[in-house]
Amino acid sequence: MPAVTLLTDFGLSDAYVAELRGVLLSSAPGITLVDITHAIAPGDVRAAAYVLGRAWHLFPPGTVHLAVVDPGVGTARGALALRAGGHFFVGPDNGIFSRVLHDTVVEIVALPTPPAAAPTFHGRDVFAPAAAAIAFGSPLESLGPPFLGIPERLATAEPRYEGKSVVGEVIYVDRFGTLVTNLTTEHVPSYATLEVEDLDLGPLRRTFAEVAAGGLVALVGSDGAVEIAVRNGSAARRLGLGVGGEVRVRLG
Amino acid sequence: MPAVTLLTDFGLSDAYVAELRGVLLSSAPGITLVDITHAIAPGDVRAAAYVLGRAWHLFPPGTVHLAVVDPGVGTARGALALRAGGHFFVGPDNGIFSRVLHDTVVEIVALPTPPAAAPTFHGRDVFAPAAAAIAFGSPLESLGPPFLGIPERLATAEPRYEGKSVVGEVIYVDRFGTLVTNLTTEHVPSYATLEVEDLDLGPLRRTFAEVAAGGLVALVGSDGAVEIAVRNGSAARRLGLGVGGEVRVRLG
Amino acid sequence: MPAVTLLTDFGLSDAYVAELRGVLLSSAPGITLVDITHAIAPGDVRAAAYVLGRAWHLFPPGTVHLAVVDPGVGTARGALALRAGGHFFVGPDNGIFSRVLHDTVVEIVALPTPPAAAPTFHGRDVFAPAAAAIAFGSPLESLGPPFLGIPERLATAEPRYEGKSVVGEVIYVDRFGTLVTNLTTEHVPSYATLEVEDLDLGPLRRTFAEVAAGGLVALVGSDGAVEIAVRNGSAARRLGLGVGGEVRVRLG
Repeated sequence: MPAVTLLTDFGLSDAYVAELRGVLLSSAPGITLVDITHAIAPGDVRAAAYVLGRAWHLFPPGTVHLAVVDPGVGTARGALALRAGGHFFVGPDNGIFSRVLHDTVVEIVALPTPPAAAPTFHGRDVFAPAAAAIAFGSPLESLGPPFLGIPERLATAEPRYEGKSVVGEVIYVDRFGTLVTNLTTEHVPSYATLEVEDLDLGPLRRTFAEVAAGGLVALVGSDGAVEIAVRNGSAARRLGLGVGGEVRVRLG
Repeated sequence: MPAVTLLTDFGLSDAYVAELRGVLLSSAPGITLVDITHAIAPGDVRAAAYVLGRAWHLFPPGTVHLAVVDPGVGTARGALALRAGGHFFVGPDNGIFSRVLHDTVVEIVALPTPPAAAPTFHGRDVFAPAAAAIAFGSPLESLGPPFLGIPERLATAEPRYEGKSVVGEVIYVDRFGTLVTNLTTEHVPSYATLEVEDLDLGPLRRTFAEVAAGGLVALVGSDGAVEIAVRNGSAARRLGLGVGGEVRVRLG
Repeated sequence: MPAVTLLTDFGLSDAYVAELRGVLLSSAPGITLVDITHAIAPGDVRAAAYVLGRAWHLFPPGTVHLAVVDPGVGTARGALALRAGGHFFVGPDNGIFSRVLHDTVVEIVALPTPPAAAPTFHGRDVFAPAAAAIAFGSPLESLGPPFLGIPERLATAEPRYEGKSVVGEVIYVDRFGTLVTNLTTEHVPSYATLEVEDLDLGPLRRTFAEVAAGGLVALVGSDGAVEIAVRNGSAARRLGLGVGGEVRVRLG
């Protein structure tokens, strides 16, 4: 039986995550549950899509990913179960699967809402039962009719060219205060230097260790994105930057 | 082998929860461990009872629930293992099982304290070994003598009638700042309106989506209790209310 | 198959811990994953060594402990897999295993860094694959050549004698604000009294319950160390003390 991963904005202090776990274990006895995170900021679908996009492909093929950051719960937004890249995904149709839907071959069904479902907790009453059913072997088509629309995709800012610069932006800030950008090595040739808030960071480095403790550094993160970090510190705090902040690549 | 759930106020930053997990896995190899939460505020037995009361019944019958919020550890307070509603519960006799003991048919034993138990950590040295033994198949009566007293129950405030109003109170605040009350739909007929801090919330709504973003809303939560929420925000912060705060239902 | 425990400073809000879990489940299908903690302060190898030292021996023999608090990632610091006390340990050579290396019989290998490993995330690309391989049954010697140096050990302050006193220090502060010291009962005969910040705490007590709520108390913690606590409160906040703070035992 494949594992089920859980990603929510429920936090870990209330009963909500345990309610999901209880439903999953009751519906699919013996199942393996694995947390991705429950600490997405309330309603931050964009951060949820980023975190899910980093993690899902490292799990074994066939894993079921239950992702519930659902500020529109109880509205007319769709409820989805889909297959992409050899994995399964269950959650609201609000863009949370934006980074998964790159894959071209997908199968998508629309999950119906049972009349008894709590209007404020589809995680427990719609999505968890569907994830358990998939993990237990139910084919997607048994869970609902084909989804006929186009699933929501979050708009993403592409880096833009300005004269002899490329301007990217911060798309995620991690627990260490490291700023993840929408730039990749494609945008940063070896002769380029990086600039943030008028501070020159020099070229891309390989590791933190190439600057002194407390120093700002630009490097390629473990997911291939250009990141701005402070060695043994927080770039977000040092620079006062968050999501949407600009990072400039000087090409000449 | 049934699962063992864990609910504590130990937090997730120290070794304490891992010590429970180690004892459980050493005593009952192959057991499935599931967290309910470890983020109960230190010593808040009332919040622990609420969270446990929401979650336990969603797990499969036979599940063992280990609940250790134990400000009286090392005093003469009792140590219990009990069966209720087809599940097992292990923890201190301090009211943490108040919401479980609704069930009438229960079997309760008093757990002895082994001489070598650390006086400050019965979670590891008394309760976890008992939970593991139950999960591994030991009958309750093998763990200790019948508990002869009446287990502790937390006093609960019932809504009171004042003229043409019913006055309830907040019993729990969740991570989203939503205020859970001791009112249910029984107290709120369809023609009634709700009032908090002299603000009129109108009638009970079905979902957040019936008010604008940032708006206050009263609705029936996923556990059947009346809740006061702010759509995409925190009612606790907006209203400055916490546990014990008053919520009024105007009947006419 | 033995369990794999995880201890990191990655926090629970990003994808990093999930990436470890995905690699472990992909490399060793069906493995049991157990968190020790992910809330070590960024780069705090000393706290990581303390928490690991408390927890590891409670797990079943053969457990694999993956410990990644690795501020020197990407530098020349070594990468280790070792066997001690009947358990396995995988992580950087930076002192994180100081409290494990008490055991005299150990086998240690140096883990190579695959060329494709992300220079900033050896947890995912070096240590997790090694931990999975060990759990899956690979002998240590298949993972790398024998480690020929002496693994890093953190220097520890020993209590010192000053006239008729023993002076110890705080080595860890837990979530309750309890101050764990490097003193044990060996340093505190029954006639001694304890003193912190010029406050007399009296003799060692058995439990919190021997002082009034809000009172300061010195007792022997569940790991054998002398601890300074406030009943139903935080000694760290009350005393303004943290790691390195002095605790005095008056012998006469």
